[in-house]
Amino acid sequence: MSPASARPVAVSEYDDAVTVRRGTEPGRHHGRFSDDWVIGNAVNGGLVMASALTALGHRLRHDTDEHTDHLDPVAISAYFLTAARPGPFTTASEVVRRGRTLSTGQVSVHQPGADGVVVERMRALASFGDLEGAELEREAAAPEMPPPERCLSAQDAPPSFLAQMRFLDRLDLRLDPATAGWAAGRPSGRGSIRGWLRMRDDSEPDPTMLVLALDALPPVAFDLGFQGWTPTLEFTGHVRRRPAPGWLQVALTSQNVGGGLMEEDATVWDATGRLVAQSRQLCGYRDRPSR
Amino acid sequence: MSPASARPVAVSEYDDAVTVRRGTEPGRHHGRFSDDWVIGNAVNGGLVMASALTALGHRLRHDTDEHTDHLDPVAISAYFLTAARPGPFTTASEVVRRGRTLSTGQVSVHQPGADGVVVERMRALASFGDLEGAELEREAAAPEMPPPERCLSAQDAPPSFLAQMRFLDRLDLRLDPATAGWAAGRPSGRGSIRGWLRMRDDSEPDPTMLVLALDALPPVAFDLGFQGWTPTLEFTGHVRRRPAPGWLQVALTSQNVGGGLMEEDATVWDATGRLVAQSRQLCGYRDRPSR
Repeated sequence: MSPASARPVAVSEYDDAVTVRRGTEPGRHHGRFSDDWVIGNAVNGGLVMASALTALGHRLRHDTDEHTDHLDPVAISAYFLTAARPGPFTTASEVVRRGRTLSTGQVSVHQPGADGVVVERMRALASFGDLEGAELEREAAAPEMPPPERCLSAQDAPPSFLAQMRFLDRLDLRLDPATAGWAAGRPSGRGSIRGWLRMRDDSEPDPTMLVLALDALPPVAFDLGFQGWTPTLEFTGHVRRRPAPGWLQVALTSQNVGGGLMEEDATVWDATGRLVAQSRQLCGYRDRPSR
Repeated sequence: MSPASARPVAVSEYDDAVTVRRGTEPGRHHGRFSDDWVIGNAVNGGLVMASALTALGHRLRHDTDEHTDHLDPVAISAYFLTAARPGPFTTASEVVRRGRTLSTGQVSVHQPGADGVVVERMRALASFGDLEGAELEREAAAPEMPPPERCLSAQDAPPSFLAQMRFLDRLDLRLDPATAGWAAGRPSGRGSIRGWLRMRDDSEPDPTMLVLALDALPPVAFDLGFQGWTPTLEFTGHVRRRPAPGWLQVALTSQNVGGGLMEEDATVWDATGRLVAQSRQLCGYRDRPSR
């Protein structure tokens, strides 16, 4: 059971981060990216997607008098155009098609740029459906990992690292020691990072949070010896089940690297070991430092 | 070497299929889906994407006076809304962002529905870049397969099957016998189909054709014992290199099946064994026939 009684009555930090309010123009929502969710100078892409999905979900539910059961994000494909910054943002959502099993929409996230001109940060297509009771008859098994208390907390990283990764303060992230050698300068070269994840504020996972979880670990590029910023160009995630309360288990892999581009595949299982989401992203990387 | 001297001078069947002409309205292109490219009653989704990418590529090149090197589709995420039918179609393209390494756009494919009202068939976000000389330093190896002449030609399928799959006449598709048991009623249950692919008209592959190749094999669902239509809901493909002339090698897998949804992962290698493209799609399936 989640310790609901121990949690503050106020909206959680995570809920607050993805909150949007309806604008006066049709299809517009407004929100604010806190500087608590940055990596370097940019807002974490997973939070940008979770906020955009929250806005699009509102739009799909409220721009019609018809009842819809399509409350769960099932697929999202996001193209990252410019880095989101802390501060206010506006989303523009459009209902593209209401189908029997899925409803599909589009959402863009805008912010004023440095010169005040509005810049598009991200544009996504996404489908919502009903994952109530969804079961898989065939699924990838959760990886073998030591329990969270025997894994490496991201909080134990050097303060200089954490100062650049304020986003990590929002998470309780425990990396499998077998895939954390890169943190001590010894990347395995396998292209694999695994860990346990939950929100620091004890918010329990929901389908929208799974999209954030798919993009929350350190880049798998680190385990291949790359350092620094690996900007996401395109991210597609599929949510397959509603997650159980508790820890999420996340595994990253990458196979194909070159020409300044690599794919990062992510899979998330819930606390009961059931696969709940998967994603692939195409991201850039910088060349390895010369040795 | 490709037998270029033996090929007709006229535009090839494939080139003809993806040809679009610029409309009078900004960002509009017009084309026609031939009934030679159908599966059942619907136009193959790979052809819909290849046609849409052709239109968006035109748009990205021609709506500006600036020179662009971003001629190769690098990423496409397509949401299939309604089944495309043989007949005329119109595309609406938009330039979303011109960046240093990638240019990103959006494209929709429309057709008049049965009642004459225009219906959106597919909407996609896509990024173009320059794959000239792109190399991978790390990549998934091509699978071991018998050579094309020792594989099973799709042309040897029962005529009743081929009559429903006119699209297969456009291809020279040779399935690895080790993954073709489903065609004789003995699906392996592994969720794996592999084959060699080239265009029947000897058109050599290019980056846009790779997107078609990623969605050209029989659905991997067949190897899991499912039958019938497996509509693509969302498809994301990444093109990583320009392909060499000759056969393409395509491998499909699926791991996560349930709730009426499954993912199909596809990887394509060129005739030199180099990885050139990969994709994941979320598709629907019908339950297995009760036995």
